[in-house]
Amino acid sequence: MELASAEYGRTALEDFAFGFDAADPEGTIRRTVDGVKNWFRWGEHDVIGTLNFITDEKRREAAGLVRRGRAISLSQSFDANGPQKGWRRRTNPVHTMTDTGTDAERGIQGFPHGLGGADDVIAMPLQCSTQWDGLGHIFDHGHAWNGRRAGDVVTSEGDLVTGIEHAASLLVSRGVLLDVARHLQPDTGELPDGYAITTADLESCILAQGPTSQVGTGDIVLVRTGQLTRARRDGWGDYAGGSAPGLSFTTAEWLHRMELAAIATDTWGFEVRPNEFTAPSFQPLHQVVIPNMGLTVGEMWDLDELASACAETGVWEFQLVAPPLSVTGAVGAPVHPMALL
Amino acid sequence: MELASAEYGRTALEDFAFGFDAADPEGTIRRTVDGVKNWFRWGEHDVIGTLNFITDEKRREAAGLVRRGRAISLSQSFDANGPQKGWRRRTNPVHTMTDTGTDAERGIQGFPHGLGGADDVIAMPLQCSTQWDGLGHIFDHGHAWNGRRAGDVVTSEGDLVTGIEHAASLLVSRGVLLDVARHLQPDTGELPDGYAITTADLESCILAQGPTSQVGTGDIVLVRTGQLTRARRDGWGDYAGGSAPGLSFTTAEWLHRMELAAIATDTWGFEVRPNEFTAPSFQPLHQVVIPNMGLTVGEMWDLDELASACAETGVWEFQLVAPPLSVTGAVGAPVHPMALL
Amino acid sequence: MELASAEYGRTALEDFAFGFDAADPEGTIRRTVDGVKNWFRWGEHDVIGTLNFITDEKRREAAGLVRRGRAISLSQSFDANGPQKGWRRRTNPVHTMTDTGTDAERGIQGFPHGLGGADDVIAMPLQCSTQWDGLGHIFDHGHAWNGRRAGDVVTSEGDLVTGIEHAASLLVSRGVLLDVARHLQPDTGELPDGYAITTADLESCILAQGPTSQVGTGDIVLVRTGQLTRARRDGWGDYAGGSAPGLSFTTAEWLHRMELAAIATDTWGFEVRPNEFTAPSFQPLHQVVIPNMGLTVGEMWDLDELASACAETGVWEFQLVAPPLSVTGAVGAPVHPMALL
Amino acid sequence: MELASAEYGRTALEDFAFGFDAADPEGTIRRTVDGVKNWFRWGEHDVIGTLNFITDEKRREAAGLVRRGRAISLSQSFDANGPQKGWRRRTNPVHTMTDTGTDAERGIQGFPHGLGGADDVIAMPLQCSTQWDGLGHIFDHGHAWNGRRAGDVVTSEGDLVTGIEHAASLLVSRGVLLDVARHLQPDTGELPDGYAITTADLESCILAQGPTSQVGTGDIVLVRTGQLTRARRDGWGDYAGGSAPGLSFTTAEWLHRMELAAIATDTWGFEVRPNEFTAPSFQPLHQVVIPNMGLTVGEMWDLDELASACAETGVWEFQLVAPPLSVTGAVGAPVHPMALL
Repeated sequence: MELASAEYGRTALEDFAFGFDAADPEGTIRRTVDGVKNWFRWGEHDVIGTLNFITDEKRREAAGLVRRGRAISLSQSFDANGPQKGWRRRTNPVHTMTDTGTDAERGIQGFPHGLGGADDVIAMPLQCSTQWDGLGHIFDHGHAWNGRRAGDVVTSEGDLVTGIEHAASLLVSRGVLLDVARHLQPDTGELPDGYAITTADLESCILAQGPTSQVGTGDIVLVRTGQLTRARRDGWGDYAGGSAPGLSFTTAEWLHRMELAAIATDTWGFEVRPNEFTAPSFQPLHQVVIPNMGLTVGEMWDLDELASACAETGVWEFQLVAPPLSVTGAVGAPVHPMALL
Repeated sequence: MELASAEYGRTALEDFAFGFDAADPEGTIRRTVDGVKNWFRWGEHDVIGTLNFITDEKRREAAGLVRRGRAISLSQSFDANGPQKGWRRRTNPVHTMTDTGTDAERGIQGFPHGLGGADDVIAMPLQCSTQWDGLGHIFDHGHAWNGRRAGDVVTSEGDLVTGIEHAASLLVSRGVLLDVARHLQPDTGELPDGYAITTADLESCILAQGPTSQVGTGDIVLVRTGQLTRARRDGWGDYAGGSAPGLSFTTAEWLHRMELAAIATDTWGFEVRPNEFTAPSFQPLHQVVIPNMGLTVGEMWDLDELASACAETGVWEFQLVAPPLSVTGAVGAPVHPMALL
Repeated sequence: MELASAEYGRTALEDFAFGFDAADPEGTIRRTVDGVKNWFRWGEHDVIGTLNFITDEKRREAAGLVRRGRAISLSQSFDANGPQKGWRRRTNPVHTMTDTGTDAERGIQGFPHGLGGADDVIAMPLQCSTQWDGLGHIFDHGHAWNGRRAGDVVTSEGDLVTGIEHAASLLVSRGVLLDVARHLQPDTGELPDGYAITTADLESCILAQGPTSQVGTGDIVLVRTGQLTRARRDGWGDYAGGSAPGLSFTTAEWLHRMELAAIATDTWGFEVRPNEFTAPSFQPLHQVVIPNMGLTVGEMWDLDELASACAETGVWEFQLVAPPLSVTGAVGAPVHPMALL
Repeated sequence: MELASAEYGRTALEDFAFGFDAADPEGTIRRTVDGVKNWFRWGEHDVIGTLNFITDEKRREAAGLVRRGRAISLSQSFDANGPQKGWRRRTNPVHTMTDTGTDAERGIQGFPHGLGGADDVIAMPLQCSTQWDGLGHIFDHGHAWNGRRAGDVVTSEGDLVTGIEHAASLLVSRGVLLDVARHLQPDTGELPDGYAITTADLESCILAQGPTSQVGTGDIVLVRTGQLTRARRDGWGDYAGGSAPGLSFTTAEWLHRMELAAIATDTWGFEVRPNEFTAPSFQPLHQVVIPNMGLTVGEMWDLDELASACAETGVWEFQLVAPPLSVTGAVGAPVHPMALL
């Protein structure tokens, strides 16, 4: 298979249900939004968007997918050796100690009966490592999820309406891993930077992986591009904010039709970078799915161990428990996602 | 039932298997440690302690406890309105925005095609709200878990050996709620500050709650004292570091015998405060269970909604998924624990 | 002298040049602004306001005031024991170590030839302790200094126009201490909370202190209320944001007429608290002097040692060197002000 | 003149009063320390070292050097665009807003009568930009300034003995600029990275600059290498921690003999990098001068405007007012140094 071929990509863009004009991101985004917008679908007061698709039944089904009892972490680490390079003040975590074992051992802490302690603090962007974007993270022409004005939602005090605390405990569902990288590039298991994953790619991956990777209402889909595998081997480079494989803008229609609860990838930015527009543009798929579709998007997940485990058994579904830290008013939050299978 | 009666407490202390001398915390701690120490039980290189008790089978069993598909958050919020008062630099989280909706709406962010964004950062102690203590959090006479010297484990660079990243993905197991507050104080559902929960209390609670609250190897036990309920109603007061109901020092023997994987409470400090020693002392049960028993301890969990749900059905067991944030080298870490039932 | 007497205060308010209506803060502020506004006085591009009054000659004069060579710090300390209580996320500094002497002494730092090091970080509001307010700190009806729209000046990225870096190196001039507390309350040297210092108070203080306390164009005036002295003795209490002695709203006219370069006090908020309006109001004098007059205001300065030194010699003027930290885009910044006399 | 020639450097090293063995940093450091140690020179309780050399008379003399009234900032900016690259968690400042002008203009802050406000916070290493090293910053074989054990001085709680708060208000004296870069490299005004400034260089610079650059007891000497000029033109590169011009190890004898109060440079690390030892070594001159000589060292100062001003007038002395922020227990602190001339 030839990846990222001009022919292939062109076809996908030409076939896009809402019409794709590479020279006109604004118009293309507008038409797409018209096709996939979920505003008021769950009432005018809704603050969780597509997480409404997750039901008790869904979570029961998810628990039923735990066959071996294996727990796989989907989290990257949170430390100073992370990928961030300071773009818009996105730095790596700074973790410092307020009490240490060296102090304790030296006997200077002042506690009685031989007690010693260590304690620590952290300073970090909420989206510095494995994370969920909240619905207040992205705006479209000054509007936030469900039609609210951006300035009524997120001020200097945080997201006063759709803060991550509303979504946090809902992020438990059936998870499905689509290892598109392994599917399209079986030799390397890595998609090249700039490769746009199309709906056809997703569907052929599902077909190839078999029935356990069928997706539907309320599922959380994890798409593996292999870029993190590459970064781990070759160094971070421009992992944060540079070129990357990711979802084609044209998958917006599929994401909507599938009624996914959430989606996550192993990349910094979820969608393909650079994106498929030729005119100046920035994260156009974000603009469609977050404020308009109400989709919760995860980024920088580590899907490698899970991919191996699924490939081994041929089972690509599992219970996914991924509640982010409940930071009041956050527009994104770190999470330690667990796949239980 | 008369709570915290001198008679009752005295009996528990007098009967303590390892001998309790209220005037001699150091000696009492030493004898207790001799009785419950798990050093080298899992080899000299072990870094996870009692989390070794959790097996794939245990996690499979846990998933099987999901009957209704209900997901209950056990997390307090992370914000400036938290309980911390600055003790040893434990402050509440400071959450600030690096981009806002007001900026986006005003059109000053410089993004193309109507895109706008919000982003945020946080600075906080890792143990400021709902959290797990790591094994490097507490030392005994200059020694850390598994006999290492404290200064070889936790330096200014963090916990170089038993950092929370080793434990994080293991915190998935069968959970059991022991609502001791409701059991002992059915009228209020709250234990008074200073009340020491004894082994007899735990056992009578289990008996009263019935077979779904039997605990054993690899379980994670959640003990509700009702103090958080009170704090929520009356204000934080001295919730962080003041008097509190909590586990009696004498439960060390039971915690060891039950082979629990972990334990968590709805209080700041897990054990009763002030503790049961008359001589100067500080968190003596911590000194026994963390560096010596290798027990992972959770604090400031919100168990109220879970308690209602369990009381309603009479079922006190559930799947507990509680992986803390994977902060490299942390001696404690925030977590969003989920009970699935 | 009877302080804060209703008679006295009423007279000051009644005589106010621009008319004072206690029930109408908005109207009173508007009229006062009309009388003291300096917009465009120094051109439309000005970013430093009244700091324009400081000339080389003024600084030369200031240096000539150093008679004994005594250096007096006017800085409070920056630490966790500060006055802040979290209002609008104003916390006290959190200072943590990234390397320590205990680590160095234990030989675990990995440096050669016996070298060891200690290093540290800080997280703090820029206005948590002794500080200068920048011109971007306060707005009047959505406008900032020199008529700019607030949203064109201070976004989430900071003050893009009047950031403290423009003012920082200019804050060197002749300083004059007006120890109004000692003047009005010689017994205690402290004004009561809520006492509004009037123009008459300032002028009688100058008269009493003698010719070295005459103030004029380009001077930086320090007004001692004694509140910090009280806080140091009795505990912080509501020093940050509670009642306090401070400048009467009606001093706006004097501050303007005197052509001061800057003014600082030993209180949290510079102006009297509660202020002199009966209708709901908040820091009305700030609204007049910062965005409209372009006056740089200092707060939480420690004037006690300086007051003793001046009282001793009867000389109330000195060289004041007070450049704040040059934090790009800051709307306020910490400073270590030095009086040299 | 040929700079950094092997011949030249070798001579300086061969002539070193205490004997220089490039293969034996530990021995060379020990001998040098024996020659320049100031322990107990100011009593056993001393916490300020060579700042003892500054007297009232010295400060009076310094004030007398203000001839034109010109104030020149010697501060780099404090922002995210700084030189730091994360070495030992030394990052650049992260400045965020807690209130903004966009929020104020939009009318969502809830203040009365049209008042609006902006506020901000910062998180940064204390030595991220223009700074003074405190005496607790460096240790020699586990010992700190004046013979104290490092672990008795700097713990996780900070520098409990020689914290920067003790030195802060003392850093006012006569300043002398030695523009060694301009002296040795008149064409470029920049010394190459790795160039070791010797005592002979310093002395010939003084001779060439004339009598106003004579240095003596209590002076604060500023040495310009031109590296910052280069970094500003070419980008930061490895300014933080890479190769740099700086003081030769062998200047230790001169620094001691001159009885300087303090010294500062325009580089990250004050001494030449790589240093002159061939065996593994790290900042050996720091190890001599900070814990043993008690010398306060400044780094990352911006000396370019001052250099131009001094060259213009041929006067190289001035009043230097450089009190760092008074952070309790800090082992270093940011400063906005001002040269008044």
